[in-house]
Amino acid sequence: MGDYDNSTMRIRGKKPTGTQMVRADKVRMRWSRGVKTRRGHHGMKKGGAGVDLRHPFDRTAAGPPLAVNMAASSTLSAIHKVAIFGGTHGNELSGVLLVKHWLKHGGEITKPGMEVRPFIANPKAVEKCVRYIDTDLNRVFDSESLSNDRTGKIPYEITQAQKINSLFGPKGSKDAYDVILDLHNTTAHMGATLILENSRDNFTIQMCNYIQKSMAPEHCPVLLIEHPGVKYTTTRSIAKHSIGIEVGPQPQGVIRADILHKMRKVVKYALDFMNHFNEGTAFPSCSIEVYSVLEKIDYPRNNIGDLSAIIHPSLQDQDWKPLNPGDPMFISLDGKVTCYEGENTVYPTFVNEAAYYEKTQAFAKTEKVTLSAQSIQSVTLGSGEPPASLSTVF
Amino acid sequence: MGDYDNSTMRIRGKKPTGTQMVRADKVRMRWSRGVKTRRGHHGMKKGGAGVDLRHPFDRTAAGPPLAVNMAASSTLSAIHKVAIFGGTHGNELSGVLLVKHWLKHGGEITKPGMEVRPFIANPKAVEKCVRYIDTDLNRVFDSESLSNDRTGKIPYEITQAQKINSLFGPKGSKDAYDVILDLHNTTAHMGATLILENSRDNFTIQMCNYIQKSMAPEHCPVLLIEHPGVKYTTTRSIAKHSIGIEVGPQPQGVIRADILHKMRKVVKYALDFMNHFNEGTAFPSCSIEVYSVLEKIDYPRNNIGDLSAIIHPSLQDQDWKPLNPGDPMFISLDGKVTCYEGENTVYPTFVNEAAYYEKTQAFAKTEKVTLSAQSIQSVTLGSGEPPASLSTVF
Repeated sequence: MGDYDNSTMRIRGKKPTGTQMVRADKVRMRWSRGVKTRRGHHGMKKGGAGVDLRHPFDRTAAGPPLAVNMAASSTLSAIHKVAIFGGTHGNELSGVLLVKHWLKHGGEITKPGMEVRPFIANPKAVEKCVRYIDTDLNRVFDSESLSNDRTGKIPYEITQAQKINSLFGPKGSKDAYDVILDLHNTTAHMGATLILENSRDNFTIQMCNYIQKSMAPEHCPVLLIEHPGVKYTTTRSIAKHSIGIEVGPQPQGVIRADILHKMRKVVKYALDFMNHFNEGTAFPSCSIEVYSVLEKIDYPRNNIGDLSAIIHPSLQDQDWKPLNPGDPMFISLDGKVTCYEGENTVYPTFVNEAAYYEKTQAFAKTEKVTLSAQSIQSVTLGSGEPPASLSTVF
Repeated sequence: MGDYDNSTMRIRGKKPTGTQMVRADKVRMRWSRGVKTRRGHHGMKKGGAGVDLRHPFDRTAAGPPLAVNMAASSTLSAIHKVAIFGGTHGNELSGVLLVKHWLKHGGEITKPGMEVRPFIANPKAVEKCVRYIDTDLNRVFDSESLSNDRTGKIPYEITQAQKINSLFGPKGSKDAYDVILDLHNTTAHMGATLILENSRDNFTIQMCNYIQKSMAPEHCPVLLIEHPGVKYTTTRSIAKHSIGIEVGPQPQGVIRADILHKMRKVVKYALDFMNHFNEGTAFPSCSIEVYSVLEKIDYPRNNIGDLSAIIHPSLQDQDWKPLNPGDPMFISLDGKVTCYEGENTVYPTFVNEAAYYEKTQAFAKTEKVTLSAQSIQSVTLGSGEPPASLSTVF
């Protein structure tokens, strides 16, 4: 897995009282509130466990909020070009097997009027069944890496990123693919998680809403990794809209039928949504609850960087469950417990993800936020027939 | 994980009816029975899934059974030198963390009259958090690899094996360590498994019996990987007695507190057993049920070796549970199910172990066998006091 650790951040001094209500177009406004340092909110009992990992981009520097009339509809272009990426990380096997299957048997992902292209994003890493060869592919879609003016030995993943950008981008251009679904696995007990990078993307929020409703009663949480001032450098960030589909728990290098089945269902519902949209279905305005990343928390470590404690059994496998002040987070091998000393309940995720040990992250703290999206409808509707409404979809 | 795939084998034509009763000293006699090919016993419905992986060493070529009087006691030397290996595979973290802990805080593993030495077996692999650097350390303790007359570039693990052999062996000599406990993790749902290499080793069978009773009611299965005619080439095979301690499920590169706790308990009971033995406790003859490896089963694969099916959900996480004729084993991505077509119930283990994809193994089939061991007592008892009996231990 691994889709957001570059963009984790911390809202200091906030005191959420229950779920935060945020309109998609107002997220920056919320972040532009004054911040105040309060150790108790994110502090740890033991040194080393709570690391201030505030991003150098201060939220207060975010741009002004967009002035969008929430009552209005967004009329958007139809979706023509969709890519499904597997193997962005070569040892996350659900996406690898699904994409390989769809490359031979594409009927399942065929939709009228859409090119849906399955693609193995990091074939050398897939061949070796490792996360990456030289560097993490999912962190190198920045303008510097994507430019061709590098000199010296170029890491394999940079070359591959440039190739992907030419096939599915260029990033930020009108020629870029409309949607990329990027398939990941995690060793954490996160279930079928949708990772959202842009809280103001009405289309993608509507897609998340559709997938969540379709997956119900199964929990299908949305993780918001947005950070104002940071351009996302994930593989899928080259598309106009994107979702990371992160399903776990599954060990690296292992393929489990139950996890594959969940991922497959999410992709099916995502494509169904795009198909309904293209057919002219009007999706009324909606709100979804998302988990917004606050801060990443490292393991307690000794002076040479080795772990000095591990995830406490009461936190293990408890992704998305409340972590309340006083709850245990870590336990050392001689039995010392490190508890959460913040003032507010938070919601951990990516708890004990294998790929994040090297990224000094034991879990990420999130808070619940409600995002709203405008109603949307495709501009290609032109048959004169009344559009289907969302109620006919469910 | 990974401790026996070199020594898996197949008894063809056997028709176990319930648990097999085998005396420790009679195992070779059982294996020397005539064998007969019967496809139905191990056949698969789909081609490719059932591979005859009979070991080149035919069981019928095993030597004659030892003539041992089961009523007699074995009087054995006391245990003076014990090693605990962690990191034989560098991404199996329970043993790595426990050994690193005990290297600094050894009180927990200190026993009177015994040197108990914790040791990181493959430090470079531990540093990189990979199974191995050049080759699997747990497969290279054969006489050829351990000899110093190799030329050319020597793989790191061969050099390391020679070092380990000089520190804890030499293998097969009187100077070798008395006991090695080798700590492994698996992604399979095997619980706390004890891996036994020698069905005629009264001391180790007694130790397994003690650990099983101490762990009860938790299931602590014993996996017998013995193969007549094959010298074991595992890391621990240099000791006079050894147990592989294989605990799962745990992803590679992840440390879970619950799995670490189980492994720690097994080590504690193993050391307690040796301590009681050294103090003169008489352990009466006993019998234990073990799972004896029959055959390894590969995934169905296509013509270029890629998986064409994965473990069926009804077999996933079902290690040690009966696999009956007609039960599903694999499912392809287009829904085709491959069932078990053997005539007899078998007991799968190492189901979906990450490290065995490259070793073409989806799981191992085992049968239940009962091993008996003579009573044992230490020769060092010399105080004149009557020995403690096992009943005083539990």
